[in-house]
Amino acid sequence: MNFASDNTSGVHPKVLAALGDVDAGPAMPYGNDAATERACARLAEVFEADCAVYPVATGTAANALTLAAMTPPWGAVYCHADSHINADECGAPELFSGGAKLIPLHGDDGKLTVAALEAAIADWTPGFVHQVQPHVVALTQATEAGTVYTPEEVAAIAELAHAHGLKVQMDGARFANALVTLGCTPAELTWKAGVDALAFGATKNGTMAAEAALFFEPALAQSVPYRRKRGGHLFSKMRYLSAQLEAYLGDDVWLVNAGHANALAARLGEGLAALPGCRLLHPVQANEVFAEVPAALADALQEAGFGFYRWGPAGGAVTAIRLVASWNGDPAHVDGLLAVAQRHADAGAAASGGRAAE
Amino acid sequence: MNFASDNTSGVHPKVLAALGDVDAGPAMPYGNDAATERACARLAEVFEADCAVYPVATGTAANALTLAAMTPPWGAVYCHADSHINADECGAPELFSGGAKLIPLHGDDGKLTVAALEAAIADWTPGFVHQVQPHVVALTQATEAGTVYTPEEVAAIAELAHAHGLKVQMDGARFANALVTLGCTPAELTWKAGVDALAFGATKNGTMAAEAALFFEPALAQSVPYRRKRGGHLFSKMRYLSAQLEAYLGDDVWLVNAGHANALAARLGEGLAALPGCRLLHPVQANEVFAEVPAALADALQEAGFGFYRWGPAGGAVTAIRLVASWNGDPAHVDGLLAVAQRHADAGAAASGGRAAE
Amino acid sequence: MNFASDNTSGVHPKVLAALGDVDAGPAMPYGNDAATERACARLAEVFEADCAVYPVATGTAANALTLAAMTPPWGAVYCHADSHINADECGAPELFSGGAKLIPLHGDDGKLTVAALEAAIADWTPGFVHQVQPHVVALTQATEAGTVYTPEEVAAIAELAHAHGLKVQMDGARFANALVTLGCTPAELTWKAGVDALAFGATKNGTMAAEAALFFEPALAQSVPYRRKRGGHLFSKMRYLSAQLEAYLGDDVWLVNAGHANALAARLGEGLAALPGCRLLHPVQANEVFAEVPAALADALQEAGFGFYRWGPAGGAVTAIRLVASWNGDPAHVDGLLAVAQRHADAGAAASGGRAAE
Amino acid sequence: MNFASDNTSGVHPKVLAALGDVDAGPAMPYGNDAATERACARLAEVFEADCAVYPVATGTAANALTLAAMTPPWGAVYCHADSHINADECGAPELFSGGAKLIPLHGDDGKLTVAALEAAIADWTPGFVHQVQPHVVALTQATEAGTVYTPEEVAAIAELAHAHGLKVQMDGARFANALVTLGCTPAELTWKAGVDALAFGATKNGTMAAEAALFFEPALAQSVPYRRKRGGHLFSKMRYLSAQLEAYLGDDVWLVNAGHANALAARLGEGLAALPGCRLLHPVQANEVFAEVPAALADALQEAGFGFYRWGPAGGAVTAIRLVASWNGDPAHVDGLLAVAQRHADAGAAASGGRAAE
Repeated sequence: MNFASDNTSGVHPKVLAALGDVDAGPAMPYGNDAATERACARLAEVFEADCAVYPVATGTAANALTLAAMTPPWGAVYCHADSHINADECGAPELFSGGAKLIPLHGDDGKLTVAALEAAIADWTPGFVHQVQPHVVALTQATEAGTVYTPEEVAAIAELAHAHGLKVQMDGARFANALVTLGCTPAELTWKAGVDALAFGATKNGTMAAEAALFFEPALAQSVPYRRKRGGHLFSKMRYLSAQLEAYLGDDVWLVNAGHANALAARLGEGLAALPGCRLLHPVQANEVFAEVPAALADALQEAGFGFYRWGPAGGAVTAIRLVASWNGDPAHVDGLLAVAQRHADAGAAASGGRAAE
Repeated sequence: MNFASDNTSGVHPKVLAALGDVDAGPAMPYGNDAATERACARLAEVFEADCAVYPVATGTAANALTLAAMTPPWGAVYCHADSHINADECGAPELFSGGAKLIPLHGDDGKLTVAALEAAIADWTPGFVHQVQPHVVALTQATEAGTVYTPEEVAAIAELAHAHGLKVQMDGARFANALVTLGCTPAELTWKAGVDALAFGATKNGTMAAEAALFFEPALAQSVPYRRKRGGHLFSKMRYLSAQLEAYLGDDVWLVNAGHANALAARLGEGLAALPGCRLLHPVQANEVFAEVPAALADALQEAGFGFYRWGPAGGAVTAIRLVASWNGDPAHVDGLLAVAQRHADAGAAASGGRAAE
Repeated sequence: MNFASDNTSGVHPKVLAALGDVDAGPAMPYGNDAATERACARLAEVFEADCAVYPVATGTAANALTLAAMTPPWGAVYCHADSHINADECGAPELFSGGAKLIPLHGDDGKLTVAALEAAIADWTPGFVHQVQPHVVALTQATEAGTVYTPEEVAAIAELAHAHGLKVQMDGARFANALVTLGCTPAELTWKAGVDALAFGATKNGTMAAEAALFFEPALAQSVPYRRKRGGHLFSKMRYLSAQLEAYLGDDVWLVNAGHANALAARLGEGLAALPGCRLLHPVQANEVFAEVPAALADALQEAGFGFYRWGPAGGAVTAIRLVASWNGDPAHVDGLLAVAQRHADAGAAASGGRAAE
Repeated sequence: MNFASDNTSGVHPKVLAALGDVDAGPAMPYGNDAATERACARLAEVFEADCAVYPVATGTAANALTLAAMTPPWGAVYCHADSHINADECGAPELFSGGAKLIPLHGDDGKLTVAALEAAIADWTPGFVHQVQPHVVALTQATEAGTVYTPEEVAAIAELAHAHGLKVQMDGARFANALVTLGCTPAELTWKAGVDALAFGATKNGTMAAEAALFFEPALAQSVPYRRKRGGHLFSKMRYLSAQLEAYLGDDVWLVNAGHANALAARLGEGLAALPGCRLLHPVQANEVFAEVPAALADALQEAGFGFYRWGPAGGAVTAIRLVASWNGDPAHVDGLLAVAQRHADAGAAASGGRAAE
């Protein structure tokens, strides 16, 4: 009954099994092993691209490495103000880049817009040494607001970025969730739309700790081997990272998992939206639901044992809540939550009706 | 038949089993889970200390975090020139510390000496702004030369360090190997001897990717939570790191593993030392053997399928080799290697005897 | 006829004379000289405070050092989006701090407000490792919009900052200009109002290249000697920096200069505001005038040889212009500019009148 | 009577006069002025090269910028252990490069040798991600030991460096002193011998605070404008830096000054070397004398008011001293010092003779 985050979930059985299947005998370390070769090849195949692939264990590492590879210390990254790289990584991009600046932009539903990016670019004077020099536009797919960019939206932003010499990075911590929603191919959602580098997420969606930094233009990645080592992200027994990725991409585990989580979120969203006093704050397009609900309802849900984050002024009549569905979320928990919510609403209506009748 | 490195080995079955035992259901992320609490408590118990414990996945991370926590950007770290932190981590301490300097010192058998440290300290003028300011003395235990510091040696260096306001960091990538050799307690080899922070290694000795940064004076670790996150080393599903550590420390897995590897190395060392034309370059005190051998012998061993690193001038009559024994090394491979070596020596003696008889 | 910036001006004669008065004979380097002692003592006297003083040559250095001294790499600085430290120093605070983040806030007339700061602080969870941790609130005095904070406004922001454990830094590149406008003492505008560290500007207002980093709580400055040296800002012949500062603070040079520039700006502002189609974009409270004027007027002024920056969409009917008055600005140039503007306005009125009469 | 350092001297009258000659009227800031254009052109002329020139105010800045421009954060710089960049700049190269490593090499008389560099390069595996990757060989001219590299020696080192893809940086804090000694052209001592970038020193030799970073291959300098600004080293009133450089290079001021200082040092060296119990520790090839002298002699000189640094064990019979001659050193002080030393020697001989006669 935990809807706090998709990272509260454990490891998918097939991923776990893959770890057990790794031969415990000697293998060359640091990625010079067959499993890593296979995992990288599999990612290249999935993305239909001759991309450079660097397995790492955390999304923070994948984001920081892809950004640092394309942004010098005096560079800057345009990103959404609420993006994970700006708001939730304690300055990892700044550390790995040597002090580059993230320029926070605003946009509804967690999405950058062409207009906002155009306005920001208009404030930039290329070559003007007093200003940090933007090098990258960073997108989050799915966004922190549980929404997605269509391939066309990605392409429009990428086109603008490229026209100004900027590269496009995508934080794909919930890439699979976006992919399933959009029904396009990984290639269509990335390099075909102009994405230059992707932090390919997997941990939230079923691996233990395995992600990958992908560069669709391998020349961009020249510094990455050194940065990865220096950052402490070159695993000696990398085959265990790679085995996770391989299992994750095998048998459509990643797509099935994401589809499951998305479906739960959709049900949650529809259910909540139908209740009196509740409204969705963003469209539900991946595995997250953001809603404004009566504070009493949020209280009731938490009392009933459902875990989630809420925010807004204490003591207010309404509160904002975030519900995140996991790859292994139990549909019964979704039903349970909606049932509690419905009962709460019914009780309120009855009480209100009673009062009205008096 | 791979003696290239202990990191070519896989994961110990009990560690693997522990991963499977982790409940895949929801648990709070980022270390706020019961497994992490247990693993940290277990380390505190093992070290008989109320220490601050930060699980991470790589030794590079554990080293860089412990060093950065105690060294400002204008600080310096005295270390052995051959130490891993100086020679093999692509500048990770420099990255995490914001540009501190490692001051390489020399000493036989990979060990820092009080005399070398005294000489270096004599070159330092505390408070002189033109010079980086030493803050830490870093020891490697066991050393890169396969030797160990006794608790008394650690204490002598730590006493000198502390007398000058320096902290003592220990790179314990092969801590268990040193511990088993010395037959002392973890506490005696660390904080009781004056060590302030330890990079507690486990990966080489049987985990998949799990180490820990330990601070025996918890106040030294105040910056570590931020540095760990910012470095990309705060794992969302940290319970899987912690489960590895717990299994590693349970049932004496770590000590058994280290004892096994050490015993293999000892056999290798003794066997090689007894052969004509061979001599040990360093005492064999952990799980590594450094020897000078006839180049023809090294050739013969490699032709027979034994993997190891060698160095020295190409075409020379002798070569230096490093043989590393793993926690799951096969004693038959040790016997096999020594048998090949013995045959090679016998053949040489026969040839030589033949020639001598002529 | 240059109103482009106050840094287009040269050096005040008394400052230049002071350089010539420095004894060319031997003196101890790096600030261990009598002139530096005098300059630091003079600043302490001017500010009525036992402050730590570090002469440097650029405002960028003074800002970066004061910020870095109070912000760890995982820290953050609340500042106005348009502030020099955020917009015009190519990431110097990021470099010197080791990658801290500047959090841009918005406010009219270039000024941070208590409300904006409160809202930002509400978004911050102290100790939450996923977020950079704010350590400093940075104010610019006078602001980039040519306005000033009253001591009461500074105090209100500082009180809020201190209540949350934040330090207050002031970028005083145009500190003298603000001081003259406000008619208060340096102490009242800084530490008495809660400012912890000041980048004391002097170069724009008459020195050659001399500023100072001031810490009203000297303990905050412990790292500064190392940071200054490491940043390349410890001058061997520091007496020549100090001589500039001494001359600048002597005979009220700094206040006379600032008063002169402010008066010119006030005349410019009043003159422009009185013209048809012109309006001030911000109150003129220091030595800068921001106005919206007919594009034709801006064209006419530039054709007449007056230098200044303008912005806004090309081809628009109106344009924004910035006019900056210098310590040695010629009142005749101000009169000349206003005369040209008046003639332009009159000509427009005549043309318009003619048309109206038709 | 101060022989402590050449940076204890003041500013040459012609340099000072040049500052006074700068028009105090408006000029474009940040180097977009005629004086800077002239100074850069003059340096290009002096060096017979189409070089990229960046005036800065300190040697630390010139060194850090030239090194950082050619060394990535995971890079390394081979340098002499005693070089200023390694021993005396509090980690400035580390700061500006983002954490690169300086690899200290050893060599007599403060000089790197081809052999030492070859040995170091032999320890480096290009592309091996565990090791920082050398990018630069740094030479100091004249060295910290008061010696010089001949153009042939520079060329031999540069040839080796270039053969391994390394660039050559020269710390020319005392470049003029070396040049005068060697009697070659600036071009012969730099780019014609293979130097890629030069920190051109001037402050020690007569300017107030003016140096320049020179890149003989301008493409190497692409990042420098941003690094300079971000480091706080882009001066708004740069014409005053440039005026210093112009005056310094005019009328052979720099060569005359260096020649004067060198001559004084030569006299000091010869005089000391002729005294009983004294010997030169290094050849005197620039403006510095390193000698071992009886401790009683050093005491006597200091009692007589001569300032200099000494080192070695307290209470020893001999001590090492360093005497540095300045551009404006007084020959009478040299004579005075030698006279005191001679008298001290004579007195010792007399006492000794007396004793011998007994």
